[in-house]
Amino acid sequence: MSTATSTQIQLAARPSGWPTHDDFRTVTVEYAAPAPGEVRVRNEFVSVDPYMRGRMNDVRSYVAPYALGDRITGGAIGRVVASADEGLPVGAVVLHQHGWADVIQAPAATFRAVPELPGVPLSLQLHILGMTGLTAYVGLTRIGQLKEGDTVFVSGAAGAVGTAVGQIAKLLGAGRVIGSAGTPEKVALLTEKYGYDAAFDYRAGPVREQLAALAPEGVDVFFDNVGGDHLEAALDVMNDGGRLALCGAIAGYNTTEKAPGADNLANIITRALTLRGFTLAAHLDLAPEFAARMTEWFGSGRIAYDETIVDGIDNTVDAFLDMMRGANTGKMLVRV
Amino acid sequence: MSTATSTQIQLAARPSGWPTHDDFRTVTVEYAAPAPGEVRVRNEFVSVDPYMRGRMNDVRSYVAPYALGDRITGGAIGRVVASADEGLPVGAVVLHQHGWADVIQAPAATFRAVPELPGVPLSLQLHILGMTGLTAYVGLTRIGQLKEGDTVFVSGAAGAVGTAVGQIAKLLGAGRVIGSAGTPEKVALLTEKYGYDAAFDYRAGPVREQLAALAPEGVDVFFDNVGGDHLEAALDVMNDGGRLALCGAIAGYNTTEKAPGADNLANIITRALTLRGFTLAAHLDLAPEFAARMTEWFGSGRIAYDETIVDGIDNTVDAFLDMMRGANTGKMLVRV
Repeated sequence: MSTATSTQIQLAARPSGWPTHDDFRTVTVEYAAPAPGEVRVRNEFVSVDPYMRGRMNDVRSYVAPYALGDRITGGAIGRVVASADEGLPVGAVVLHQHGWADVIQAPAATFRAVPELPGVPLSLQLHILGMTGLTAYVGLTRIGQLKEGDTVFVSGAAGAVGTAVGQIAKLLGAGRVIGSAGTPEKVALLTEKYGYDAAFDYRAGPVREQLAALAPEGVDVFFDNVGGDHLEAALDVMNDGGRLALCGAIAGYNTTEKAPGADNLANIITRALTLRGFTLAAHLDLAPEFAARMTEWFGSGRIAYDETIVDGIDNTVDAFLDMMRGANTGKMLVRV
Repeated sequence: MSTATSTQIQLAARPSGWPTHDDFRTVTVEYAAPAPGEVRVRNEFVSVDPYMRGRMNDVRSYVAPYALGDRITGGAIGRVVASADEGLPVGAVVLHQHGWADVIQAPAATFRAVPELPGVPLSLQLHILGMTGLTAYVGLTRIGQLKEGDTVFVSGAAGAVGTAVGQIAKLLGAGRVIGSAGTPEKVALLTEKYGYDAAFDYRAGPVREQLAALAPEGVDVFFDNVGGDHLEAALDVMNDGGRLALCGAIAGYNTTEKAPGADNLANIITRALTLRGFTLAAHLDLAPEFAARMTEWFGSGRIAYDETIVDGIDNTVDAFLDMMRGANTGKMLVRV
């Protein structure tokens, strides 16, 4: 087996506010032939996700911050191109968390083989069939305690998670499902493609007023990807006993000043609400249940998705920044 | 059986900000002899509680607002002085929710007979042995999911609920218990009488700094009676997976402007926190369990309490206003 050259992207500096290219560094790594137990993988798709922004800060969180000089780790899918491990032969398709690189070489145990399904793009394992879909499922079921007929509100609904949440909510028996997105085109997509009953453009007017108008009978489950004005607007319209599944707060990820929080937190008491922040790591036990249901839903053609694909590992930072600005519809991915 | 004259206090106007005497009206009600099934009760103690302030506003909440002209209803305990119901003879001690009155006459079914225990003041049924104690118990167990060794923070800890929370937390196996109160005297009482390990005066400096200094290893369960700066300070120090039982938000009850909420709500996600507002009505199923445990704790002399007693039904409004300003230690009561 031969050596290989890998292009990898590292964190060079901790961003203050919006990240810039100066906060990242592209390096070339030379791999020797795989040592026993190692495999070499050529990535096909690399994921860029909002949570990565949090890991670039040196603050306490559920996942450790990236160290300066670390490769940006995260989801990716590729194919084994060289192997010194019997369990993962050349040609196997593998999911892993090694992140932003075109080629990665590491112990076989750090990769997970996934079946290659006919007609199913590999990229879907990085979103609707993978962690993104599971995030939506966990947030609606265990965290949001969704019940038949519930009204659901999803912020940032045209993103990877949001497009999954709307569909899964409907499949789980939700009544009215309302979403917010950042452009008229995305808003149209929510109701036309993703099964949302109503949607609004959060840039077109106060979220508070737009949501109240669309939720005259209140909201039972709020799935939040945005935070800020969306959380405040939701607290206004939550029904008694409502559940708020807090998954992300992208509104605040790139601010340097602390913004004041919702002015209506007292509603948590008067309406007996439950707000629960969650992260996938603590709920991976739901993965088999999700996989079984999603396989059925997807197989019967009931799951739509969008991908916004950027080509070339060298464009990963741009893909990440564009995603943070909302340039994507559905899942933002880098095709290596 | 004769007629009787009753002094009752009604809501005359909806307070804007701090209530004043002009918002209440004292009326005299003449009762005829009890009709069949009715009893007449002379109250011994009448309760004034923070939640009553919320009911004076015409806003949606877990309990309906008081109507203008309504008697202020709430907890009280008294003795049957005239009866046309076999089940409740003259002399029986009864708990009820008829509220601010010296004498009340109503159907027997609206009163609940309670045993008169030797050496136990009747007033305790209105706090540590009653709803106040149950509130503390529900908040710590079902809502706060208290575990052995947990660090607990209680805001407004020298009030009726707070003094109960500290003691019950310790009896349930909490590790460090920290409280806040509004005067140096109350702070001393928390550690000297109520089993708190540490306490601070929230008027003496920023809550954020004082709490952080006393909770170097973080907080697992926050029992909140105050809201505002206390909630923000707690969110700073909560440990991963922490539970915030939101019982009251007295800081905001008498403000007319909406105050901005905590600036660190994003911690809910990054630390996988659960915030849950609660009200007793939904958790009365825990009353028997609480009664059994509290009877044992109280009977073995392990429960301390304070009462701040105001004499005379005509002083009920003053007692209520003083309680809202924090003039009480422990439970504020009116002795009729």
